[in-house]
This record gives sequence, C-alpha cells and structure tokens, in this order.
Amino acid sequence: MEFRVVRKCRSSRARLGELTTNHGIIKTPTFMPVGTSGAVKGVSPEEVRDAGADIILANTYHLYLRPGHTLIERLGGLHRFMNWAGPILTDSGGFQTLSLSKLRTISPEGVTFRSHLDGSTHFLGPAKAMEIQESLGSDIAMTLDECAPAGSSHDYVRNSVKLTEQWARRCLEEKKASSQALFGIVQGGIYPDLREMSARGLVSLGFDGYAIGGLAIGEDRRTREDIAGLTREFLPDEKPTYLMGVGTPEDIIEAVKMGLDLFDCVLPTRNARNGMLFTNAGSLIIKNSQYAQDDSPIEYGCGCYTCSHYSRAYLRHLYLSKEMLASRLNTIHNLYYYSHLLSGIRKAIEENRLAEFNHDFYARRVDNQEQEANSYQ
Amino acid sequence: MEFRVVRKCRSSRARLGELTTNHGIIKTPTFMPVGTSGAVKGVSPEEVRDAGADIILANTYHLYLRPGHTLIERLGGLHRFMNWAGPILTDSGGFQTLSLSKLRTISPEGVTFRSHLDGSTHFLGPAKAMEIQESLGSDIAMTLDECAPAGSSHDYVRNSVKLTEQWARRCLEEKKASSQALFGIVQGGIYPDLREMSARGLVSLGFDGYAIGGLAIGEDRRTREDIAGLTREFLPDEKPTYLMGVGTPEDIIEAVKMGLDLFDCVLPTRNARNGMLFTNAGSLIIKNSQYAQDDSPIEYGCGCYTCSHYSRAYLRHLYLSKEMLASRLNTIHNLYYYSHLLSGIRKAIEENRLAEFNHDFYARRVDNQEQEANSYQ
Repeated sequence: MEFRVVRKCRSSRARLGELTTNHGIIKTPTFMPVGTSGAVKGVSPEEVRDAGADIILANTYHLYLRPGHTLIERLGGLHRFMNWAGPILTDSGGFQTLSLSKLRTISPEGVTFRSHLDGSTHFLGPAKAMEIQESLGSDIAMTLDECAPAGSSHDYVRNSVKLTEQWARRCLEEKKASSQALFGIVQGGIYPDLREMSARGLVSLGFDGYAIGGLAIGEDRRTREDIAGLTREFLPDEKPTYLMGVGTPEDIIEAVKMGLDLFDCVLPTRNARNGMLFTNAGSLIIKNSQYAQDDSPIEYGCGCYTCSHYSRAYLRHLYLSKEMLASRLNTIHNLYYYSHLLSGIRKAIEENRLAEFNHDFYARRVDNQEQEANSYQ
Repeated sequence: MEFRVVRKCRSSRARLGELTTNHGIIKTPTFMPVGTSGAVKGVSPEEVRDAGADIILANTYHLYLRPGHTLIERLGGLHRFMNWAGPILTDSGGFQTLSLSKLRTISPEGVTFRSHLDGSTHFLGPAKAMEIQESLGSDIAMTLDECAPAGSSHDYVRNSVKLTEQWARRCLEEKKASSQALFGIVQGGIYPDLREMSARGLVSLGFDGYAIGGLAIGEDRRTREDIAGLTREFLPDEKPTYLMGVGTPEDIIEAVKMGLDLFDCVLPTRNARNGMLFTNAGSLIIKNSQYAQDDSPIEYGCGCYTCSHYSRAYLRHLYLSKEMLASRLNTIHNLYYYSHLLSGIRKAIEENRLAEFNHDFYARRVDNQEQEANSYQ
C-alpha cells in the first residue's frame, strides 16, 4: 500500500491524498460505508459504488461469528463472496467485543467474549485477529485494540493503552507474510497524556497508517474534537490517518481540517433505515406529515438515483408502509450525500478554498442544533 | 386496448397474444408481479423490468387506504408515483375486503369493511371502485366482484354471482369516460353451473377482457384446474383472459394450456422473502445447511443478476443474517424465473412445440410432490 499527499490545504491541516491498495486507488479524505456482515445494509455493491464510495468497511467480529472466516477464505475471500471489487478495510473485532458481546474478559493474551448471536464463548487475540483478517483478504487490516469503556479512569486507560501497544506489536509480527496493509489504533480515552503515549508508542513500531479509536462512544462533541485534534498531532504526516466510527457531516468536516483522511460510520445507513435523510440544510424526517403531498425530491440538485426518480411523498408512503424499498432508497440518498460531501471537500482542498467551503456548509444549515441532537448515535 | 391472437398452439388451447395498452405492448401469456402498495416488495422498478416483467399488478384496496388514491392522482398517477413506466393492472379491491378486512358487510350497493390498518370503516361500491382505479390511472381496471369464501353453499354462491354481475354492469356504466380497459371477473365458486352462468352474464355485457376469480382460495388443485378449464370454455377467444391469483409454475403451465393469458401471484416475491427459490428442478430452501459452503449460483444457466454474481453460500449467509439484501436478491431470481418460464412458454407456442416444452418441464422436476406441498400458499 502506498500513500501520497497530493496537496495541502492553506487554511488548515487538511490534505488531499491518494491511497493505492490492491483493489484500486482511493482519494482521501474519504468516507467508508459500513458493510458489517458482508453487505452494506439495504443496498447492493453496485449501488454503493454508484453512490460514490471507493472503499467499504467490514466487521471482523461479525464475519468471524457468521459465516466464519475460513468459509469466506475457501470461497475466494470477502471481495468475491460479497461481489465488491473495490478496496475493503476490516476492523479487528476488538471494539465489538465491548459494544456487542454479553461478557468480555481481557487478559494479556487477548479477549474472551460471548457471541451476541448464540452465547458461545470465543477467544480473540492479536494472532487470531490477524488470521481472520488475512482469511477475509481485506486490503487494510487493523490491529487488535482494547477500547476502554466511556468513563474509564486514568489508571484503567493507561493499562489499556499499554495492552493495546503490546497487541499492536504482536499483530505486526504476525502480519509479515501478508501483502495486507496494517493500521495501528491509538487509544487513550479522553486523557491527552495517554493519547500522546499511545500515539508515540505505535508510531515507533511503524504501521502503514494510524487510526484514532475509542471516540464517538459517549463523550461530548467538544471533547471528541479536542482529543482527535491533539492525537492527530502525534501522527506522521506521510501516513494515512483514520478517525474510527465518526460521524456526522459536521464531525467529518472538522476532522478533515485536523488532517484526518479516513472515516467510517453507520449514521448514513442506519439513519436511512430509520427514515432520517441528510440534506445540505440539515436532517429531514421523512415520516413527518408535512411531506405527505410533497412532490419534491429529498433535495433539489442531488444527483442520486432516489432524488432522480422519487418524491418525498412516495418515500414517506413507502416508509409508513414498511416497504423495504424505503430503506434502500433512503440509504442510496444518504450514502450519496456522504460521498458527495467528501468529494466536495476534496475539490475544495484542491482548489484552495476549503475555508469558503466550510463557511458555506455551515451557512446552509437551518437547524444546526437540531441536527446535532437528532443524528448522533 | 387492443388484443390480437398471434398464433394458436396445435396441441392445446394455448395461444400467443399481443395486448396493446397505453403504456406498451404485452406479449401473452404473461405473468404480472404483484406491487401491492405501489412497490413490488423487495425490488426496484428497474429490477422488475430487468427480470423480464412487462406489466405489474397493484392493489386498489391497499392504495385506497394508504396513501389514498386522490393523493396519487394529484401527484400524477400511479405510474409516475412509483416510477414504473410500463402497464399496470389494478384489481378492484373486492377480494381484499374478504382476505384482509376484519369485518365486511355486503349489500346490493357494495361492501362495507374495516381497514386492516386502523379499523376505520369504509364503503366500496362499483362506482367507488371505478373512481379509485381511474385516479390511480391503471391501464387495466377490474370490475368490483364478490369473492365468496371457500366452502360457500350453492345458494350463497348463486346470489354472489348475481351481485357480481350487477356490480359489473354498474362498473361498465361508470367507466364510459375513461380510456382505461375494463375486465369483468367471473365468479361461481366450485360450481360448474354457476361458473357458466357468471361467464355468460359477463360476456353478454361485453368487457375488454375476462378474469376468472375466486380460485386459489383453499380448494384442491384438481378442483382449481377443472373449474378454471370449464370456465375458460365460456369466454370469447378474441379477448384476453386472466386467471387471478394463480399460481405455481405447474399451475401456470396447466392454465396456459387451457387458453389463459394473464396470471398474477405473490408466490415468487413472498417465497423469495421466505428464502424459497424456484429452479427448474423444483424448490430450493436457501437456509438449508447443505448450501453453507455451496459456491454454485441458485441455478446454473440462469441469467438473472443474482445468479450472475452470488453463490448459494452467500445467499444463505444473508438470509440467516436477516440482511434485507437477501430478500432482494432472492426476489430478483424468482421474478426472473417466472418471466423466463413464461417467455419459454411463448417461444414454445410460437415454434409449435408446447407439448415438448411441457414434457421437459415436468421431466426436470426432481420433487414434484414436495414442490406442490411447499410452494402453494
């Protein structure tokens, strides 16, 4: 994997990059739709691509439990299994042992956890996390990390950071044989000194890229931005950086200005299924009665399939009728909105007008407060 | 609307026809996917078309209750509302007042029923049924009929047939202004004399086409075929004929041989959502463990999008993971199977080899009995 910074922004730390993977070149900053179980919920691979996405994220935890990584490997790897020809990033599964598993026990060797599907007990250590991701055949793998729960003490998080570094070292050792890229994950909770310690430790090990983990798990927005910004300062400019699990359009714009390159979040897909649509003016709740007779598209000027063919009135009808086409059409729009937002950001960086883009973005929003309150999950 | 018989089969009453509607020409015999609430469940209009369907059916009862026919009319009619450029046939809503409504009271004027959505009381008479269908703007409308419940006595059904004829006359009177085609619906339950009475009565009124209703509601297969066949004898050969709500691939082949031209059924779409796939060899239950590692498509040689890109193993995984992409990919295959079956039948009639086609069809099925037991609903 190669990463090249094509251009730097004049007004911020934002940069335009090119990430070359086994399955194609990704222009950064970019957003990765989440394809948890080997499918981006609600849409086909072609629709993900047509919405403008170049790379997707898949969850190691889910695919390990079902259908199993050895099965996927036997059938030719995840790209072939799910019919996605572009790059795939897999997480390591560490986060889901916190967010989904009923019980997890952490030891220096790894995490013992119970499946959220059937309660069966499993062990995930650095070697296993690498084995699974290698079987899946993702272009970018992530190191196994411990994401400390929100509200963890400084002592707890310090130990967690040390463990995360040990595991990262082990992942790097295991990884040798593979042509997969490997990103290290910086932890450290909301503690600046621990974020610095974690970042410096990982950078000294030397990864293909660096992710900032452990955010968007319950802290307030200001803290999230402060921690992301200061952590980014300790990461090398010549490597791609990835802010995990973030976020709203606002979050992403702010993070881009900090010099972050990659993002993933379930917001566009999950909110779509819940009838919440992203527009330049803010969020639109499609079930609201004001749209009952509204012949407009979700957003005028939007080039997505949904806005090209369907009215708000029809989308509201589908949503209220619980037709699965509702989720699909909404997801297509939201993914397009995110891709289009990121391509707009890239163009603005290229043309040295990100400050203007930023100003326009906020000026168009009629309901900043409401947006923030509604959309973060 | 014009109907032209292009060719007659030598070995049966089957015929190849061309039905010219406001939204395009339909080659018959053909199958109409069911788009109950203004969407064929699980798929987009483009996917319905790409699967080979030329015409869809929409349900007057559902669209009247939600979002309402006046709303759809205001937004330009059903074709535009749902983004379907091809022909649409609407039923009259009569059948759903039997199958879905909590309570229905029948009077000479029409049916009073309760909405299955919110319990509200509504009245559907011949004039109303025509008004709704005109608002929807379908290419083919159906007369309001009373479908007598399965097991109804001869006396009950005789009265029902008389009422159905009165309503059909009223529909014809109401219809005058419209360019919509109107089909009459023959009732008469399982009683040959009443089927004859109903057919003769409707034919003397003169409709653009004739449907056989009141079958596939619980009677056994042999009775269904006998009644459909004898009813067909009383319908004019120069008009299109439509067997409502039928059925399995076997049912359709048998009905084509009787000289029936149009079919609709929820089987391909509903079974797809339940993981039951149609193949030339019979039904395939995708969740079965035998497909866990099966890299084959649903059916080799099938030209559908699903079979071109996905393995049984992946489809099984999606189904077990409750991913909505499962329903979609399965629906695409089943609709393609039905369209392909009907286009095969048409080609066989054209080439004077329907008997051979029929023989091959049954010879390929490895589980006739199981197929019959599993697939009829």
